Amino acid sequence: MNDGVSIDRARAGDVAAIVAMLADDALGARRESPGDPKPYMAAFEDIDADPRQYLAVARRDGRVVGTLQLTFVPGLSHRGSTRAQVEAVRVDSDERGGGLGTDLLLWAEEEARRRGAAILQLTSDASREDAHRFYERLGYTASHVGFKKRIG
Amino acid sequence: MNDGVSIDRARAGDVAAIVAMLADDALGARRESPGDPKPYMAAFEDIDADPRQYLAVARRDGRVVGTLQLTFVPGLSHRGSTRAQVEAVRVDSDERGGGLGTDLLLWAEEEARRRGAAILQLTSDASREDAHRFYERLGYTASHVGFKKRIG
Repeated sequence: MNDGVSIDRARAGDVAAIVAMLADDALGARRESPGDPKPYMAAFEDIDADPRQYLAVARRDGRVVGTLQLTFVPGLSHRGSTRAQVEAVRVDSDERGGGLGTDLLLWAEEEARRRGAAILQLTSDASREDAHRFYERLGYTASHVGFKKRIG
Repeated sequence: MNDGVSIDRARAGDVAAIVAMLADDALGARRESPGDPKPYMAAFEDIDADPRQYLAVARRDGRVVGTLQLTFVPGLSHRGSTRAQVEAVRVDSDERGGGLGTDLLLWAEEEARRRGAAILQLTSDASREDAHRFYERLGYTASHVGFKKRIG
């Protein structure tokens, strides 16, 4: 873990900083509306009340500098394994290249093991080639194709 | 929907039939143990108790002939959108090619819309090329790379 960085559960007061990171991104800029906090706060309340969701933030000296969401999905396949799914990984632009992404993913892996998950999974937009190399270095295998369909 | 087919929530008595389908598959045969129901029943109870999980079965004349699991994941990104994730899609070998997979996926899409999800998503093993064409015909875009890491 980077010196001076801690990772813990996001609180309501962190939502604006998380949304700013989601929007500060080549893909995110087109789909977020950081000026309108309402839908984000409603979603935060749903996440926070669900014991299978863990919205994590990395803080440096109290300031939010990274985030990811971990979701535990119980399932029958793989002999009744729980999957831990990682979504919405973001690192503050000032922190990129400093190992904070690694800190976040290793934290997620540790938390997933602690909760007994057998599989860690995530998808990454096909255009994010740097991210793909990053996940492969962390021991992930690009074994699947990720399909999405917008319905709302 | 196929004549004589209905789709509804799986019950405990359906688990053995679902596991048989999970195991009757080129990839599944290596990782399932249908002779040992215990881990599957424990996972079923977790799924069944979670309002964000919907383990669905397709029945023809009362017999289980297909399954998929739908999971609702609340999130901050995309303006606080809920994602509906599809896992563990299986169709009985006697029914393949008859449109039951389409019935299951269209059912999932309808249920996801009903619950207000904005994004439907799934991953498919890179080796399942027929499945990829199937999802593309249903309007999914192969926009992402799916990474997995076994941790248990």
